[in-house]
Amino acid sequence: MYAITIPEPGGPEALVWAEVADPVPGEGEVLVEVVAGAVNRADLLQRQGFYNPPPGATEVPGLECSGRVAALGPGVSGWSVGDEVCALLAGGGYAEKVVVPAGQLLPVPENTDLVTGAALPEVTATVWSNVFMIAHLRPGETFLVHGGSSGIGTMAVQLAKAVGARVAVTAGTKEKLDRCAELGADILINYREQDFVEEIERATDGAGADVILDNMGAKYLDRNIRALATNGRLAIIGMQGGVKGELNIATLLNKRGAITATSLRARPLAEKAAIVAAVREHVWPLIATGRVRPIVDRKLPMSDAAQAHRVVEEGGHIGKVLLTLK
Amino acid sequence: MYAITIPEPGGPEALVWAEVADPVPGEGEVLVEVVAGAVNRADLLQRQGFYNPPPGATEVPGLECSGRVAALGPGVSGWSVGDEVCALLAGGGYAEKVVVPAGQLLPVPENTDLVTGAALPEVTATVWSNVFMIAHLRPGETFLVHGGSSGIGTMAVQLAKAVGARVAVTAGTKEKLDRCAELGADILINYREQDFVEEIERATDGAGADVILDNMGAKYLDRNIRALATNGRLAIIGMQGGVKGELNIATLLNKRGAITATSLRARPLAEKAAIVAAVREHVWPLIATGRVRPIVDRKLPMSDAAQAHRVVEEGGHIGKVLLTLK
Repeated sequence: MYAITIPEPGGPEALVWAEVADPVPGEGEVLVEVVAGAVNRADLLQRQGFYNPPPGATEVPGLECSGRVAALGPGVSGWSVGDEVCALLAGGGYAEKVVVPAGQLLPVPENTDLVTGAALPEVTATVWSNVFMIAHLRPGETFLVHGGSSGIGTMAVQLAKAVGARVAVTAGTKEKLDRCAELGADILINYREQDFVEEIERATDGAGADVILDNMGAKYLDRNIRALATNGRLAIIGMQGGVKGELNIATLLNKRGAITATSLRARPLAEKAAIVAAVREHVWPLIATGRVRPIVDRKLPMSDAAQAHRVVEEGGHIGKVLLTLK
Repeated sequence: MYAITIPEPGGPEALVWAEVADPVPGEGEVLVEVVAGAVNRADLLQRQGFYNPPPGATEVPGLECSGRVAALGPGVSGWSVGDEVCALLAGGGYAEKVVVPAGQLLPVPENTDLVTGAALPEVTATVWSNVFMIAHLRPGETFLVHGGSSGIGTMAVQLAKAVGARVAVTAGTKEKLDRCAELGADILINYREQDFVEEIERATDGAGADVILDNMGAKYLDRNIRALATNGRLAIIGMQGGVKGELNIATLLNKRGAITATSLRARPLAEKAAIVAAVREHVWPLIATGRVRPIVDRKLPMSDAAQAHRVVEEGGHIGKVLLTLK
């Protein structure tokens, strides 16, 4: 088969479409013939040599895909050859075929075409696990998501609105904020022109945000803590603004606040399967009814993954950038 | 009545035993005739002018006491004049009488004399709420408590052992570590001679501590994160080692860790009442059977609270320092 390989880490041109050995499904695994993959920021880091795949995972990048079940490994039940699926991957999605632990497969939800299904696994699993399973966002609470127009952001806005939260977003342009508003965001903050701590305070009469989903890490740590409400929860899922930040413990303590930091990729299979099952139970019905929609910025041929990485690096996109085959 | 007053913040001599107006119980409150109070570190900060009482609380220090119910305010049921009680207070425990919201009263547990009851409310409510209600310590997990010989520490060691956890402590002398061992601690770390991160790694085959109860704040922040296990929870309840510390978010994220910081004193009445009810349900039976014991270092006359503060400031004590009346 063909897959994206990374002979030498580097810029987008480091991604090379080349022939590699077909993967073979082992115990509890399923072989998927890929129809589409999607770009995640972690792929950019992996391409640059900063984010090695976890032990046992393929060197081929790609954390999610859609496609058709092509073969079942030993001990797999509940899936049949030909099923249209999407999948959360530890790697390998930039390829014509990929092997997936059965617990990380999802049916393509109703109301969604097979290609678009590739836009769903990472954002739904990341948002559901962090905002709902860990931070327990509740109806009536205020939720702030940074980068509201990203793949994660567009899904977080919609899911938080669907459960009855009030939603604030940060983004860097009016166009991006307008799209967040169309998706239901109530409080729009242009981080280039406004201080999000002040804007959250103003919009909540000083109360602050009950849950914050953050992809910036160190750069926003102090401001995120200041923007939290009493009993607020900060869920960190990225470090685009650096790794080491100063934590004011007194501010956190006065608010009785909580900070969590997670990534999906390194979780053990059982935890991933539990998250995928929760996504299927809670998020898939919202997609089936159209209440929540996958937001796709554009589709590019997988063999030109380099161009897709340039788009994501430039940051002008809204929602997911997909990689298609054929 | 007489109470400890603080005419001018300062050293232990700032505590002055003086006549003040009797408190009067309002709606939902109970007047307690105090038999004993206890010293908490927050009292030392308040004496120095660094920790003002929350709005509405008395200026008299003292976060816990034992005594007898002397009068009931309007709307109180379930308590009678003469009942022997102990109580979690927002202040006012260094006095002959104190007014308490009814939800913060506890019966003196079986197996405990009335004076010793004053040693229980703060440590049981702090440990139960942080280690069990927030950090969800489970049987078989490894628990690390800093300052294992303090009032908080001695209660935390016993409660964690009672639920089936493996317990590690830090302390600064062999005598203190020996007392922790008598209370059940499995892993003894002299912080003056050993690095607790290394010792926890060694004792857990590199796995780390599942829950850490920390009173040091900034000084231990980085080491606490390094000592955490995957899915570990750091519960901060004090800042004896400073307020602002560098947080390595990558380390926290790789472990999928959580940090919480809380104090009891500022919680709203309903939250305090819920914690006190949980303590009564879960901790009081363990005290009644003798499985868990209040640890008292010494008893001093409340009028000489200054001397009690000196003892706690010097840090040679093990367990609680009580203040007695008559």
